[in-house]
Amino acid sequence: MKNALIVMIGIASSTVFLSSAIGGQAPATTDLSSPRFSANDELMRPDNYREWIYLSSGLGMSYGTTTSPANANPPFDNVFVTPAAYRSFLATGKWPDKTMFVLELRGSASEGSINKQGHFQGQMLGMEVEVKDESRFPGKWAFYEFGRTAASAKPTPTTASCYSCHAQNGAVDNTFVQFYPTLADIAKQKGTFKSAP
Amino acid sequence: MKNALIVMIGIASSTVFLSSAIGGQAPATTDLSSPRFSANDELMRPDNYREWIYLSSGLGMSYGTTTSPANANPPFDNVFVTPAAYRSFLATGKWPDKTMFVLELRGSASEGSINKQGHFQGQMLGMEVEVKDESRFPGKWAFYEFGRTAASAKPTPTTASCYSCHAQNGAVDNTFVQFYPTLADIAKQKGTFKSAP
Repeated sequence: MKNALIVMIGIASSTVFLSSAIGGQAPATTDLSSPRFSANDELMRPDNYREWIYLSSGLGMSYGTTTSPANANPPFDNVFVTPAAYRSFLATGKWPDKTMFVLELRGSASEGSINKQGHFQGQMLGMEVEVKDESRFPGKWAFYEFGRTAASAKPTPTTASCYSCHAQNGAVDNTFVQFYPTLADIAKQKGTFKSAP
Repeated sequence: MKNALIVMIGIASSTVFLSSAIGGQAPATTDLSSPRFSANDELMRPDNYREWIYLSSGLGMSYGTTTSPANANPPFDNVFVTPAAYRSFLATGKWPDKTMFVLELRGSASEGSINKQGHFQGQMLGMEVEVKDESRFPGKWAFYEFGRTAASAKPTPTTASCYSCHAQNGAVDNTFVQFYPTLADIAKQKGTFKSAP
């Protein structure tokens, strides 16, 4: 699924990753407010992420340069974070333990219905998750790739570039708050925003 | 503010409008779950819309053709709907009375931080609202433009093109569900999705 996803991303030579801790519309006291792991340490797919807090979207974002021809319809990425983590961030400018982010990838199209220009979103291409769990992960954060339908996922190996890239370039903790306009403003107010690379 | 917004939208000759009913993270029993009107019938700005349910985003969407030169950094639009209306839609494929949508417009940029290609979101350019109130509006729905900071707004005159365009082209009721992938699937399942124009 990882390879299929990378092919679908097209020109994005460096996968745009996400970051974060689980929550939900439901009260923080339910099991929807924390990451859920299987007996063999796989993360269970957070099915309700579309009801979490939306942070931002990008179109065809890429952190690397490429000589590939431009993709006329590159993928959109939509980033969501668990509601409990969002509320904590508004108050402190930091991510609490158990924070969970989802990066959802969707196809794009330009002409459809009455639309004539620009891009709108289509079907889901894949979904990735970043979880903060200070007692479970030596580096505090871990990434998971669920593709379109996987019910659970093993953590991405810590040798993957997403770990070093997020650690080196995240504006707040291990996360790319520099690309989430409403949270970047909060982090700057709270003094937790690291200078952009 | 309307003119300023249109200028900022750039190549979007037909404003990408939104659709539908108020809600919030708070329980449906609070005043955040319904549109709030002032004594002189202005709609009060729904300050918490970033905590509503996210539906989709577009980049540089336009419903009209234009001969203007392409904008290298066209605006993003993000659409949110009130949580109570969203839950009702999941169950019925229809929008209940008091549904409220927000269309948020944000600037885009391509190069910034570690990003090299594609587009990510920047500062807010404006915010528009569509409300369904069957007893208040003869056509059941009304549009409001708040710009970046207005605390309240009068309804956009019903002679504006947004009214006829939404009535004629909305896939569900007065709303562009054809551009909200997760809800389009629901509407098709529930039999409420009108054929796209």
